[in-house]
Amino acid sequence: MSVQKMKIGCAGLGRMGKRHALNFLERCPRAELVAASSPDPVELEWAKRHLEPFGVRLYQNYDDMLKQEGLQAIVVASATAVHAEQAIKAIEADKHVLCEKPLSTSVDVSQSVVDAANKKPHLKVMCGFSRRFDASYRDAFKKMSTGTIGTPSVLRSQTCDKLDPSGFFVAYAEFSGGIFVDCSIHDIDLALWFFGAHSKVKSVSAVGITAVEPDLRKHNDRDNAVGLVEFHDGKIAYFYASRMMAAGQEDTTEIIGTKGKLAVNAQPQMNLVNIFDDSGVRREIPQTYYDRFEYAFVTEANEFTACVLEDRKLPLDLNAAVQAVRIGAALQESMVGGKKIVFDEDGNRIEVSKL
Amino acid sequence: MSVQKMKIGCAGLGRMGKRHALNFLERCPRAELVAASSPDPVELEWAKRHLEPFGVRLYQNYDDMLKQEGLQAIVVASATAVHAEQAIKAIEADKHVLCEKPLSTSVDVSQSVVDAANKKPHLKVMCGFSRRFDASYRDAFKKMSTGTIGTPSVLRSQTCDKLDPSGFFVAYAEFSGGIFVDCSIHDIDLALWFFGAHSKVKSVSAVGITAVEPDLRKHNDRDNAVGLVEFHDGKIAYFYASRMMAAGQEDTTEIIGTKGKLAVNAQPQMNLVNIFDDSGVRREIPQTYYDRFEYAFVTEANEFTACVLEDRKLPLDLNAAVQAVRIGAALQESMVGGKKIVFDEDGNRIEVSKL
Amino acid sequence: MSVQKMKIGCAGLGRMGKRHALNFLERCPRAELVAASSPDPVELEWAKRHLEPFGVRLYQNYDDMLKQEGLQAIVVASATAVHAEQAIKAIEADKHVLCEKPLSTSVDVSQSVVDAANKKPHLKVMCGFSRRFDASYRDAFKKMSTGTIGTPSVLRSQTCDKLDPSGFFVAYAEFSGGIFVDCSIHDIDLALWFFGAHSKVKSVSAVGITAVEPDLRKHNDRDNAVGLVEFHDGKIAYFYASRMMAAGQEDTTEIIGTKGKLAVNAQPQMNLVNIFDDSGVRREIPQTYYDRFEYAFVTEANEFTACVLEDRKLPLDLNAAVQAVRIGAALQESMVGGKKIVFDEDGNRIEVSKL
Amino acid sequence: MSVQKMKIGCAGLGRMGKRHALNFLERCPRAELVAASSPDPVELEWAKRHLEPFGVRLYQNYDDMLKQEGLQAIVVASATAVHAEQAIKAIEADKHVLCEKPLSTSVDVSQSVVDAANKKPHLKVMCGFSRRFDASYRDAFKKMSTGTIGTPSVLRSQTCDKLDPSGFFVAYAEFSGGIFVDCSIHDIDLALWFFGAHSKVKSVSAVGITAVEPDLRKHNDRDNAVGLVEFHDGKIAYFYASRMMAAGQEDTTEIIGTKGKLAVNAQPQMNLVNIFDDSGVRREIPQTYYDRFEYAFVTEANEFTACVLEDRKLPLDLNAAVQAVRIGAALQESMVGGKKIVFDEDGNRIEVSKL
Repeated sequence: MSVQKMKIGCAGLGRMGKRHALNFLERCPRAELVAASSPDPVELEWAKRHLEPFGVRLYQNYDDMLKQEGLQAIVVASATAVHAEQAIKAIEADKHVLCEKPLSTSVDVSQSVVDAANKKPHLKVMCGFSRRFDASYRDAFKKMSTGTIGTPSVLRSQTCDKLDPSGFFVAYAEFSGGIFVDCSIHDIDLALWFFGAHSKVKSVSAVGITAVEPDLRKHNDRDNAVGLVEFHDGKIAYFYASRMMAAGQEDTTEIIGTKGKLAVNAQPQMNLVNIFDDSGVRREIPQTYYDRFEYAFVTEANEFTACVLEDRKLPLDLNAAVQAVRIGAALQESMVGGKKIVFDEDGNRIEVSKL
Repeated sequence: MSVQKMKIGCAGLGRMGKRHALNFLERCPRAELVAASSPDPVELEWAKRHLEPFGVRLYQNYDDMLKQEGLQAIVVASATAVHAEQAIKAIEADKHVLCEKPLSTSVDVSQSVVDAANKKPHLKVMCGFSRRFDASYRDAFKKMSTGTIGTPSVLRSQTCDKLDPSGFFVAYAEFSGGIFVDCSIHDIDLALWFFGAHSKVKSVSAVGITAVEPDLRKHNDRDNAVGLVEFHDGKIAYFYASRMMAAGQEDTTEIIGTKGKLAVNAQPQMNLVNIFDDSGVRREIPQTYYDRFEYAFVTEANEFTACVLEDRKLPLDLNAAVQAVRIGAALQESMVGGKKIVFDEDGNRIEVSKL
Repeated sequence: MSVQKMKIGCAGLGRMGKRHALNFLERCPRAELVAASSPDPVELEWAKRHLEPFGVRLYQNYDDMLKQEGLQAIVVASATAVHAEQAIKAIEADKHVLCEKPLSTSVDVSQSVVDAANKKPHLKVMCGFSRRFDASYRDAFKKMSTGTIGTPSVLRSQTCDKLDPSGFFVAYAEFSGGIFVDCSIHDIDLALWFFGAHSKVKSVSAVGITAVEPDLRKHNDRDNAVGLVEFHDGKIAYFYASRMMAAGQEDTTEIIGTKGKLAVNAQPQMNLVNIFDDSGVRREIPQTYYDRFEYAFVTEANEFTACVLEDRKLPLDLNAAVQAVRIGAALQESMVGGKKIVFDEDGNRIEVSKL
Repeated sequence: MSVQKMKIGCAGLGRMGKRHALNFLERCPRAELVAASSPDPVELEWAKRHLEPFGVRLYQNYDDMLKQEGLQAIVVASATAVHAEQAIKAIEADKHVLCEKPLSTSVDVSQSVVDAANKKPHLKVMCGFSRRFDASYRDAFKKMSTGTIGTPSVLRSQTCDKLDPSGFFVAYAEFSGGIFVDCSIHDIDLALWFFGAHSKVKSVSAVGITAVEPDLRKHNDRDNAVGLVEFHDGKIAYFYASRMMAAGQEDTTEIIGTKGKLAVNAQPQMNLVNIFDDSGVRREIPQTYYDRFEYAFVTEANEFTACVLEDRKLPLDLNAAVQAVRIGAALQESMVGGKKIVFDEDGNRIEVSKL
């Protein structure tokens, strides 16, 4: 048997790390998960039971894992704060990299990953915007590309989480970069995908409230926020992000063109079951982001693997990942500062008082 | 002001009678409700408050009402048991007639109304199958007629009531003609409409159960029943009727053709509101038949009026109303007796043992 | 027959005027349409055929109509430019007034109607925001009011018209007040209804594009616009208006609360028919605003009539109609000028440079 | 690495064989596809490219494959005509068996597989009714089991294929057992699942037509058929099968209970995209059975594997697979012969003339 498989290691074994590790282990036939690292003893304990028996070597130290003989690629699925550092180290060690979003909550740090990748053009370095691998979004993109809706002009998109009554997201907000960088980043990436990565921002405005968690203000964050992005080529994207959905995860997108509209997930649903009882007709909806996008992550792993093995072009441009952070951070700044932020066509800020 | 209005009287002021009376009074600009009759003092009391102040003359006795000067038409909305008798008297008194369905639970009695009407071809005599006036059914019929689905071949239709926990329908079953004559009659009429009134039944088979009200068996009735009708020209209609829906009224129809399908009310709904809460996404649905078909009854009143005033052809053939009772009664017999009933092309029964 | 009817006259017999006239004539049993006026000979010609035979007296001159003996109320359904003038004249002539929205595209002129009405507190003066009479919006409001969604916090609403390929709306834009005053006014009114008429605006921001009709810029208008309104009590409303929908009228609203969400018309539909053919499963949607809200206009006419006859409190506060114009005009200004507009709690503008 | 994997061989590499082979190869981490057989050179050529490089040994002869060292299990995915023979051979060779449905179109031959399996109780022998592994059906079953709908009483289910304009299904009908055995077998199995495998049939009636392919009558088959099954414990199941859907695969099921209803796939859809264009709002639907149930087949493969490796009870009882064929064959007979077929509580036929 002479089939080549991509040998990959997983950095981080938290909530997303476990999922990426298991996807590469079990649902990615052309990849071989050969290593995994975590500084956390509890996570390593989990890995001893679920990964080690299948031939995965475990590391407490990420740097040690990078040295493993034959390792070709790394999936960075650790805390956001170390995404960029680990990605850059992997690049420098000549590994292909699939990095969880965002590269960093900082635009400059995000850019440093791109700079590192640019020095190694033979490597595949991708930031994992999962929605780009979702079958429905892909179908919508394909339909748009073949003219179904004319010229796409307005994009509405939202990333809305089910309310976590534990309030965990308050503590989390300290490092998340804020609701626009943590949640809306997906919607921003969709705008860059559907409108084209070349799209230049003309202005951003945003407002936010704390309807359920006033403590978020300590971290300059909000639990509900709406952002408005204007592009220089006459397009508009607007976003809604929330941490307080009652029913579950509600990630909906509409792309409105001059000849039609495409809606993705306008009617969220868990599955194909409808329940008729004395309260009416009811369906359940996904409870978490992963519930909704599980198969997109599997596709992401498989396509990254195929691009590495076949030296194919990645489906995502790494520069767009930096641009998404840039827009997200500007929206967050606009929301907190209460001001509209305006850019010229070269991306430089224009003083509002000079308008 | 020289506009002519049709002067109509309403026979019966029970649940449906009140609705017909008010529709002709308030929602039918070309008609003038001038009379109403009921033997029931409570109903007449209601009429004194809601009809009399608007110029409607009230009668305890139907025959007296028929003699009112200038009366042109009667809407028969009394108990089913007297539908035919009152309709025939009205015809004989030279009045146009809109009769609630069914003409009678008996095929022969139903036919006697047709015979009476045939003697007075200048009169408009219509049996009110409300669904024929519903905007959605009409849109479906129009689409079918213009070829949207090719040749219609299979029709599935159901009339399913919300469970009435009072069990009223058990006592009601004594006179209703049974679930196929009382409920499925609407679906049978739809089959005759969509397949054509000329359609000849080849066989009927039916089964029924008493899932919630075993006492219905005393009246040879069931609370859930499925019927299967085969037509000689190679079409099939199948029906489901139920008295135990939890969510509300569920009247759904599908017409399947060689090139497409039309579904009417496949997703019942009360209005355009969706409720998102921790049980998922929910909508309410109509609770009663009238909730669902209110506007169809209004349209029925207005169209009947227009046909009378303009001497136009009625949208329904009275013979189809007899044919619907014939099929409903045969299904009821098949369900109770446990046998399939077979007909030749002339409508005569064929002994099964001779098949 | 001693039943009192409200005698009403209709000012204007254009597209909306015809509808209001016919609704009061045919679908409003407690009202009597006794007069109608239009300066337009073509419209009067129509009225001679459709209104005069039913006892409606016609006028070329609005002032003449006001003098008709016994006239109690006026429905102002003329061009927006004369709404306020005609409403004030009617008030001064001691008539009740139902005025089509908006009172005026000018805040000051709108206020002058309120001032006139305040001098005659015995009169019923209402601005017809039709959505307040729609069964689905009312059901949503009732559910919100009884706590179904906790505290309402974010409202998303859109008024999106089917593209009129004749481009009529370009000429129309000269007098419409712009897309936020013409279309979003409905959504703004919904925000004031669902959040409460007391809601104080903290800021507005808006952007707009001309995706299909660049000529709109001549009238400082756009064909697609998104607006963002922040309220001082920590609520957000955001609006989308468009003139280029391909499928039809898409007026959707979501009210998001701390414990749930209500969506109105998230899945637009013409009726209950689904068409299955080789392109998939399809439903048609309303083509115009009136297609969608026909019955709301009928309810509006009937409720206005009941309030007049029974001297009941109107369901809408006239001040909210001015507030809606104020917000719409500010959004339009923000869109055209490219600036965020900020208000203090007393409604005074704050200079952005001073923030 | 000490993880044990189940070594499996695939019999048949036609349409379904390819899918089963690839599922065990790529999407079933605990299984190892080690062998595959087909008498067809074209199929073997395909396998040389897609299976052999991954270590799968290929056979022209099924019997030879059975002798492969270490082989533990067989997935029988060949033509229906050899399902039973191959399954029995595998059992006799002491292999676990996952057999595609149906075991056979003959009740007796189906029973012979059960008899063979009964002699080897240590083996796992399962007939692959894929819908039992579908997430939506499982969710519905779980909800029913926890009382959501009270007592399940009526089941409606349909298996409707998109029209294949090549008419392939006419030739196919020669060996398929007919539309009730080929298509409705899934729905029958659902009835046995939701009502319980103990359910005893009281009667079956069926009618069928040839709306698009009259030639099917040569093989005693129809292109549209409706069947009605009554159970001795007062439950009803009714089925619709069709070969002429225009939009795609429409497999819908409703389970109606005394306190509610569960609907599975009442609104078929390919994905979460809605297309708004000048024809309305549209969604695409799955085109084939496999489009709809792809993930159910993957789950089936994984669960079968887990049951073998962990010696767990299979989720399906093999006897139910025979009972499903028995009911399907009776429906087919009723449809062709035009007679209702009645059974006593022991499953013996009762002569209709004796009823």
